[in-house]
Amino acid sequence: MSKIFIGFDVGGTNIKIGCFNFDIKLISKTSIVTNADMGARTVVENMGQAAEKLLANAGFSLKDISAAGLGTPGPAKYRNGIIIRAANMPKFKNVPIRQMLSERLGDKAVVFANDANAACWGEYVLGAGKGIEDMVFFTLGTGIGGAIINKGRLLEGAGDNATELGHLIIYPDGRKCNCGQTGCVEAYASANATARRAAEAVAVGEKSSLKKVLDKNSEITCKDVYEHLMKGDKLAKRITDETAKALAILCINMLHTTEPSRIVFAGGMIAAGMILLDRIKDYFNELVWNLKKEKVEICFATLGEDAGIIGSAAMAMEIS
Amino acid sequence: MSKIFIGFDVGGTNIKIGCFNFDIKLISKTSIVTNADMGARTVVENMGQAAEKLLANAGFSLKDISAAGLGTPGPAKYRNGIIIRAANMPKFKNVPIRQMLSERLGDKAVVFANDANAACWGEYVLGAGKGIEDMVFFTLGTGIGGAIINKGRLLEGAGDNATELGHLIIYPDGRKCNCGQTGCVEAYASANATARRAAEAVAVGEKSSLKKVLDKNSEITCKDVYEHLMKGDKLAKRITDETAKALAILCINMLHTTEPSRIVFAGGMIAAGMILLDRIKDYFNELVWNLKKEKVEICFATLGEDAGIIGSAAMAMEIS
Repeated sequence: MSKIFIGFDVGGTNIKIGCFNFDIKLISKTSIVTNADMGARTVVENMGQAAEKLLANAGFSLKDISAAGLGTPGPAKYRNGIIIRAANMPKFKNVPIRQMLSERLGDKAVVFANDANAACWGEYVLGAGKGIEDMVFFTLGTGIGGAIINKGRLLEGAGDNATELGHLIIYPDGRKCNCGQTGCVEAYASANATARRAAEAVAVGEKSSLKKVLDKNSEITCKDVYEHLMKGDKLAKRITDETAKALAILCINMLHTTEPSRIVFAGGMIAAGMILLDRIKDYFNELVWNLKKEKVEICFATLGEDAGIIGSAAMAMEIS
Repeated sequence: MSKIFIGFDVGGTNIKIGCFNFDIKLISKTSIVTNADMGARTVVENMGQAAEKLLANAGFSLKDISAAGLGTPGPAKYRNGIIIRAANMPKFKNVPIRQMLSERLGDKAVVFANDANAACWGEYVLGAGKGIEDMVFFTLGTGIGGAIINKGRLLEGAGDNATELGHLIIYPDGRKCNCGQTGCVEAYASANATARRAAEAVAVGEKSSLKKVLDKNSEITCKDVYEHLMKGDKLAKRITDETAKALAILCINMLHTTEPSRIVFAGGMIAAGMILLDRIKDYFNELVWNLKKEKVEICFATLGEDAGIIGSAAMAMEIS
């Protein structure tokens, strides 16, 4: 009897792979370089080889796989199994990745989902979303990804590309976003945008201990901003406040759209810790309506980088 | 055998009541003054009497009712059948209206829903949403109401008060909204807000043919704005453009949240016609991302004021 689930979390830089048992307990995991430039065929072959090795080390083989889950960035035709295009993987155009991976794994069933949806599902099943039915999930990294669970169901949209929540416009005529819009929350509150706003302010002469960082490294990272915030730098505080305010407005807009009982933030930026989370909550309480008391919890994810492989594997379990 | 469905659409001013057959064909309808100040008991009694009269005129009685549907403004505990409070009906506090109406109708089953949800469901079943599964619905009136259908299911949220879409914040630190927030789309693009912005501009001396209206009537209505727009007034055009832009941003934000295939505008303001709809579409196309071509249709509702009673009756049919 098949007894193993494999979860794949494909990013522009790395692919994470996890091997899980029937309780979605992690047996072992690995990570390979994506090498997207080598084309989809090579990438899928690498994924297959890495999975085989991972399984072998745990005493299994491809035959033991019950089903696999695969998360990739959108936009994609998820229900058809096709990556249309991927911002960080220019050679991936109209790639029937679900079918290719399925064949490589010995014709095993593969569930294909948006990477943020997969990570959200992981948190929902085993992490910060446990015990609730209505959740909104944000990943704060290079960009801002999102996912929504409503009554225990992931929202997928008419064309499988719903919940691109980083691209909600909250400052019309504001900052340019990579997506072509202006004023997206991603253009203000992602890790990259937070760092960029700090660098811009230093460059035009705002007083800050971050100036030394910019002079030395020719760039400021989001991590720098939070480190200097901890040390009391005023500019770092203003930049963090603006990030927190944008995220709080995003939370309010989600409250008025799908009314979650919990909003979960994930991604590299949550390393900033409670100093960021508390500011988001403060702005939320300050800016939300007073028609009724809102009970939504705002918190951080708990599964870290494993959320994607856990969620993919859990989705695979659902179809088998 | 029971064969009739009754739909109630309760507003602050009027209550509409419709009597429908098994195909949700309207047999007859009526409207009574809400008289909310007389309290819930009297209002429900009036609803019962009006329904009896409506039925009698069509040759039926309460016994012929299979089930009834009831739409009211939120916030309410819809699943518990209770109106918590209602902005336009201050005497309605913690009213178990579903139970009260059910008893008045001879212990018939009553489905209780948000009024915008009911109207959206009407359009989905018989109007502008026919044939699709993913829809966003806006009512443009005194305020802006909203509803979302995702995969054929109304989004209701953790506390039954999702899709208060008029209260998405799109201009942080902008205009004050009645709800206590600042920068809500409702504070810019509702019929009332559109009229108010025009009146403010005239009051501070902007040149416009609307000045005569303000001088004569001491107010400007949204209808005035669109009438003067037709006649070529420049201020009316700017005001309309701002309304259309705010609504287009709302559409983009919905696209990136639940990804509908159709967005439907209803309510008194759609009387403005294609001149408004075309501007909304123009701004949508100008402001939306270019990562991929979006196919969402933006259109007007087709059922007019009957959408609420049709939707309520259709919901009643679903439970019987």
